Amino acid sequence: MQQWKTLSKKTILSHNRFLTVEQHQIQLPDGKVISDWPWIISPDFVNVMAMSDDGLFHVFRQVKYAIDGTSLAPVGGHIEPGEDPFTAAQRELREEMGFDAREWIPLGTFRNNGNYGAGTAHLYFARGVKHVAEPIVDDLEEMEMRTLTLPQLENAVRNGEFKAIAWATCAALTLLHLKGPQK
Amino acid sequence: MQQWKTLSKKTILSHNRFLTVEQHQIQLPDGKVISDWPWIISPDFVNVMAMSDDGLFHVFRQVKYAIDGTSLAPVGGHIEPGEDPFTAAQRELREEMGFDAREWIPLGTFRNNGNYGAGTAHLYFARGVKHVAEPIVDDLEEMEMRTLTLPQLENAVRNGEFKAIAWATCAALTLLHLKGPQK
Repeated sequence: MQQWKTLSKKTILSHNRFLTVEQHQIQLPDGKVISDWPWIISPDFVNVMAMSDDGLFHVFRQVKYAIDGTSLAPVGGHIEPGEDPFTAAQRELREEMGFDAREWIPLGTFRNNGNYGAGTAHLYFARGVKHVAEPIVDDLEEMEMRTLTLPQLENAVRNGEFKAIAWATCAALTLLHLKGPQK
Repeated sequence: MQQWKTLSKKTILSHNRFLTVEQHQIQLPDGKVISDWPWIISPDFVNVMAMSDDGLFHVFRQVKYAIDGTSLAPVGGHIEPGEDPFTAAQRELREEMGFDAREWIPLGTFRNNGNYGAGTAHLYFARGVKHVAEPIVDDLEEMEMRTLTLPQLENAVRNGEFKAIAWATCAALTLLHLKGPQK
């Protein structure tokens, strides 16, 4: 199977640092050319599921513009220009919750949109988190910290209480990690 | 916690049926106004993890423009205008794999981008799938059907072989469903 070839790119919307849209001219392996393929450029981001040694998971309940009602959410934020994903994950965990972690488990890197790009999500599970600083409250969203036990986290994932897909993925992959390989 | 208020919307990019971008003027609960919030409109889609009664999972290995190399992927596709998500899931399972399913388990509906919208993903687990028709090959992407055992699916999820986030979520939530509630 062959990758599609990018013949040309042009910027068709340069909105702000959160969104640029390009139009790509693409050639398929059979020679067919598509001239109006949209390509979304938005910041890569991290999400971090935090667990302390007492077995509790630390998440937010928060509002978010694109989400109805409130949602549970793990720590998360954009990766700054030039920053590597793991540094961003450590920074966000400290800024948003005031935590450092003893152990970091990378849960994977995923494309947000398989067709049109839209950045990548870098997901982590942080174990043995400990309070080391005061959180820095600079997000636009109202949020409250919540702690969940393992069964509560599992129910929340099953019931769709993590309403953005990257949040649900981060929580689900954490649970799969904890359950260990299938017997 | 209060939802943010949309004061006004205007279309700033009307590209094709796969992408429209609006600019929203938004008011936060503290009165602060943000004038350049981007809002991405792209089609809602479904993904379906298919399992037959012999315990095998049916997926694709395929190329996708926004993904490096090939990826495993569940059945999936856009929801047509006016179509409900479950109908789209049944249609895509039949079109892409020629399967009907005995049992449908909804795995949840998720916002693709918590800030900027970008449509919703409707995820399903289809059990007892059976061949009822020939697949209709009309996707642009080259793809091959693959079958995975449960341990193979679990390893694939852990190893990030489902490279688009909705695909990974569909597979991970299927595995959590099968593992049952935490003891």
